Amino acid sequence: MTLRIDLLQLLKNNGDHYISGEQICRQLGVSRTAVWKHMEALRKMDYVIEARSNVGYRLVSVPDRLYPEEVQADLETSVVGSEVRYSAGVVSTNENAKEWAREGAPDGAVYLAEEQGVGKGRLGREWFSPRGRGLWFSVIVRPQINPVDVPQITLVAAVAVAAAINEQTGLVPGIKWPNDLLAGKRKLCGILTEMNADMERIQHIVIGIGLNVNIYQEDIPQELQGVITSIAMETGRKINRVQLLQAILRQMDYWYQIWISSGFNAILEKWKQWNVTLGQRVQVSTLKEVVEGVAEDVDETGALVVRLNDGNCKRFLAGEVSLRKEK
Amino acid sequence: MTLRIDLLQLLKNNGDHYISGEQICRQLGVSRTAVWKHMEALRKMDYVIEARSNVGYRLVSVPDRLYPEEVQADLETSVVGSEVRYSAGVVSTNENAKEWAREGAPDGAVYLAEEQGVGKGRLGREWFSPRGRGLWFSVIVRPQINPVDVPQITLVAAVAVAAAINEQTGLVPGIKWPNDLLAGKRKLCGILTEMNADMERIQHIVIGIGLNVNIYQEDIPQELQGVITSIAMETGRKINRVQLLQAILRQMDYWYQIWISSGFNAILEKWKQWNVTLGQRVQVSTLKEVVEGVAEDVDETGALVVRLNDGNCKRFLAGEVSLRKEK
Repeated sequence: MTLRIDLLQLLKNNGDHYISGEQICRQLGVSRTAVWKHMEALRKMDYVIEARSNVGYRLVSVPDRLYPEEVQADLETSVVGSEVRYSAGVVSTNENAKEWAREGAPDGAVYLAEEQGVGKGRLGREWFSPRGRGLWFSVIVRPQINPVDVPQITLVAAVAVAAAINEQTGLVPGIKWPNDLLAGKRKLCGILTEMNADMERIQHIVIGIGLNVNIYQEDIPQELQGVITSIAMETGRKINRVQLLQAILRQMDYWYQIWISSGFNAILEKWKQWNVTLGQRVQVSTLKEVVEGVAEDVDETGALVVRLNDGNCKRFLAGEVSLRKEK
Repeated sequence: MTLRIDLLQLLKNNGDHYISGEQICRQLGVSRTAVWKHMEALRKMDYVIEARSNVGYRLVSVPDRLYPEEVQADLETSVVGSEVRYSAGVVSTNENAKEWAREGAPDGAVYLAEEQGVGKGRLGREWFSPRGRGLWFSVIVRPQINPVDVPQITLVAAVAVAAAINEQTGLVPGIKWPNDLLAGKRKLCGILTEMNADMERIQHIVIGIGLNVNIYQEDIPQELQGVITSIAMETGRKINRVQLLQAILRQMDYWYQIWISSGFNAILEKWKQWNVTLGQRVQVSTLKEVVEGVAEDVDETGALVVRLNDGNCKRFLAGEVSLRKEK
């Protein structure tokens, strides 16, 4: 696939100009047959490549797909994106990523799909994931950490996605503890972290991310109207998904390594800047109980500290938060 | 399989007496052909069944195997042992159990093997698991608990196994936090708990148990001489593995349900009675550090509390403990 990535890069670098077959062969150091084979493969992937006899080739358009060839080009991360697998459609990227992880996917491997049949939200809920309209992907990591520290990685991912969205689109998302990104009150992105571990060691963690990118009002099913939003809806423009995904992978790579090398504090500080939970009246639902109070802090373990109505504080490492009042 | 269990039970109930084919058919309400078919199946499983024409059948001997037909007979647990799968040999019962769990094994399902190729100890170590000489099995549970409470289940299992060994053999094993059963200073049993979870919910927990039962001095490889022991070595007699396994499954069923319904305190109290860790000088090794101190307590979360040499206390939810001094 490296040859195909190089060929694409060459065509892209030439912009509107034609580049001759001979020159391509010379620059890539391969035969005409090899070049021709990859040109055909790219055309089948819906790249439009014009060929003029005695002049050469020109890249006319790039399809709106999350091909690994696009995602890995110039990615330059150290861990996240080490390998990328792509599928037109899956039931849930987390399920495919977990299978891949069991079969030995490397640290930082990314599983991407254009569409999810069901998607997988928290507590077995579905996640609306229409074809080509979002970033539905899962990142596999294998940190040497204590399993009790795993919930922190959801916050690492939330910081990375928020930073990338802001950098690429100017939008300022808010993080709702622990794992949702909001625009205003509507859901923009969800993060579902799953782990496979014994009591001392992580086998793998799969961080599933569902980010609504080019979804429009009319795409949204009735029951989600007013509940979810997308970057396109918030910014009024169509977003280049490959660029946004690359930005997210780079930010994840960056913050993941800070977390591994320097611990959770740097993450927490950044997380607090993006958060829209602290200081709010919240309702927290866990498997055991539902409580109300004020979200006072997120502590150094990643737990949400809630000041209950009776004045006592309670820590939550997991749970669903509903914001009760605006700041 | 119920018919085969019933047929076996009938033969066992008749002890040394013969029971006629006609009587068997009448009591089980099935045809001669069906009875004959299951007799043949039992013989292939190495049951010795004598058949005397015009007199009937008599069970001469039961093979020393952990057949589900034996294990599930009169088990009468409510969760643990709900289904039992058996294999002559596997690489690791935990691996097979995890696969079964992903395919939908019910709460309490048990995967048994006569032999493990590698076994699976903590931190990827191997577990010596020779054919027919121990109890190598994994229990799948699906409690609705918070993932941070999962380490407690290793203590639940340790209490159950210790109680069953004591009840069946008179031996008094000692629990070394968190997951080893010792006889004297030697390892009798190891417990490896693995989980599959998101941040809020357990998909499944697999509790792998390796218990050395009828292993003798001469069976033990050089590098484990003096390190491991077995119930047979400690008590001087060969143990009926099926009876011991049934006792363990019943104790697990009992303590598991106490844990689920009443929480960790009752377990902890019992655990402390069996433990040989508290009050000892210990070295605790985790992925991050190695510390020395005195094991002061196990707290209400299952964490080991160690008084370090500098006087401060430190909590461990996972780690390897070496006992430094006898009590």
